[in-house]
Amino acid sequence: MTTKKRILSGMRPTGQLHLGNYHGALENWVKMQEDYDCFFFIADWHALTSDYEDPSRIADYVKDMMLDWLSAGLSPEQSTLFVQSHVKEHAELFLLLSMITPVPWLERNPTYKDQIVQLEKKDLSTFGFLGYPVLQAADIIMYKADGVPVGVDQVPHVEITREIARRFNYFYGKVFPEPDAVLTPTPKILGLDRRKMSKSYNNAIFLSDAPDEIRKKVSQMITDPDRARKSDPGNPVICNVFDFHKLYSPGETVQEVEGQCCSAGIGCVQCKKMMAENLVEYLTPMRERRIYYESRPETVAEIIVTGGDKARRVSQATMEEVRSAIRI
Amino acid sequence: MTTKKRILSGMRPTGQLHLGNYHGALENWVKMQEDYDCFFFIADWHALTSDYEDPSRIADYVKDMMLDWLSAGLSPEQSTLFVQSHVKEHAELFLLLSMITPVPWLERNPTYKDQIVQLEKKDLSTFGFLGYPVLQAADIIMYKADGVPVGVDQVPHVEITREIARRFNYFYGKVFPEPDAVLTPTPKILGLDRRKMSKSYNNAIFLSDAPDEIRKKVSQMITDPDRARKSDPGNPVICNVFDFHKLYSPGETVQEVEGQCCSAGIGCVQCKKMMAENLVEYLTPMRERRIYYESRPETVAEIIVTGGDKARRVSQATMEEVRSAIRI
Repeated sequence: MTTKKRILSGMRPTGQLHLGNYHGALENWVKMQEDYDCFFFIADWHALTSDYEDPSRIADYVKDMMLDWLSAGLSPEQSTLFVQSHVKEHAELFLLLSMITPVPWLERNPTYKDQIVQLEKKDLSTFGFLGYPVLQAADIIMYKADGVPVGVDQVPHVEITREIARRFNYFYGKVFPEPDAVLTPTPKILGLDRRKMSKSYNNAIFLSDAPDEIRKKVSQMITDPDRARKSDPGNPVICNVFDFHKLYSPGETVQEVEGQCCSAGIGCVQCKKMMAENLVEYLTPMRERRIYYESRPETVAEIIVTGGDKARRVSQATMEEVRSAIRI
Repeated sequence: MTTKKRILSGMRPTGQLHLGNYHGALENWVKMQEDYDCFFFIADWHALTSDYEDPSRIADYVKDMMLDWLSAGLSPEQSTLFVQSHVKEHAELFLLLSMITPVPWLERNPTYKDQIVQLEKKDLSTFGFLGYPVLQAADIIMYKADGVPVGVDQVPHVEITREIARRFNYFYGKVFPEPDAVLTPTPKILGLDRRKMSKSYNNAIFLSDAPDEIRKKVSQMITDPDRARKSDPGNPVICNVFDFHKLYSPGETVQEVEGQCCSAGIGCVQCKKMMAENLVEYLTPMRERRIYYESRPETVAEIIVTGGDKARRVSQATMEEVRSAIRI
């Protein structure tokens, strides 16, 4: 028996997941379950860093997210799926790591600077927001993860985590491995309007959308803007619908659509209809799992409890080590 | 049955307590036990804010402090005596309060600015040090304390605690009372060399000093520096030993010493000897309690466990309220 390497990753519960979230992270997590000992958590405490003024929807978002995860194919048998706030040890480790983390490490965090600018409507100059890389470090090293699957923009966070782990080990003796950032391969996928797919842009196709909703949204997708009439040849290279075809349609269809588009053989309406049907089919296993779990809320609740128990067993063992290293 | 008001206070475990600590806080705590529902805690997590590089002595200091407390007359039957790190709920509340605390509130904290200057040898620009008023707020409001006995220098901390409690109540509904600072009356007491009594100045008389140690230290005390010879009249108003007399000697002795000093009737050596005996006697009940507890380490250990259990029952109830208010 070989010991699998352990990975850990989390998501902030901010509402229904869309195709961008799926291909950007979840799809990869589902695949990694075979080869890794996976810990995936819903970061509800992190959600407070931006939504502290009105956290009323976080609890519902947590349930929605677990349903999205299970529908997408995360397996509670293979992986440890849990909710951050159910494992109080994260708060204790956050407190202890806060004592050794220099403020300048946090201030120079590029995502911190970005978010302050991007979310200028919200007052983010809170102590918790400044310290969220410390909480993230606690989340990750708690499980002694070997790797953290992340997108490119998250690499600086993993770097801070490594620095904090190193500093802990330097002061108190080696307790934590330094986790590696595992870059997630992400296919290009844009929203209906060709901007980044995002719930707040109102241009997203959600994993939970019903087939007719998907068909309707696809029919509204912006294609090659230079193709004014069906009789004009199109350019698949710049067409968002063609990118979707590459993800959801069989190889022959992709080839056929490409040829027919360039030769004005099919119009965008027909092309979208083909793609929509393939996308609906692609999502069918998710839809079926969703129906299964939606009708069994007690099963989902149990999965959340069991995942928390599993995570807590690991985190309690880690905290024993941490306390004896710090001798406190 | 009238419900007593609740007070809470804590001390950082930094080694043996001296007379300055006793009269500055502990004496008052002992008195308050009759009239208040008292929670007193040893702030070992707070000790990490300055001693994170080498926390190896904190655990011993915790034991020493509990022994000092019990010797001084804090009663585990009357009051709840506990160690901060034994009540993990403080870490969770710290995390939650961090989300709502603006960084500028912490940066303008006068003690923060002071300490940064005073302890310039230590690198204190850590996230945990910046946030220690947040942890302090969590410590206090966790028990819904009505009052916090503090010295004048600590009043700004209680003010930040009140602001944080108010902000929590504003966002999430009223959970916490705003605690009042209860100013501790503190008699003037200086160290052997007339500077502030402090372990680091090496000028302190400790509660645990043996009678002969006390006599020796008192004999080294600096008196009226203008009294060069025994035949010169002294000035009790500026004499540190006279301040000690006022604390430890009977009224007649104080009067007598005052007269004899001004008229050069007694010399400083004799005056100190009288005071030393009275101080030794004053500390006798403490010495006896210390002997009792020192020979019963398992009793002290049990007191610490029981106090932690009592504190945890209260803090767990508070956290239930907090979580349901934040709905997380």
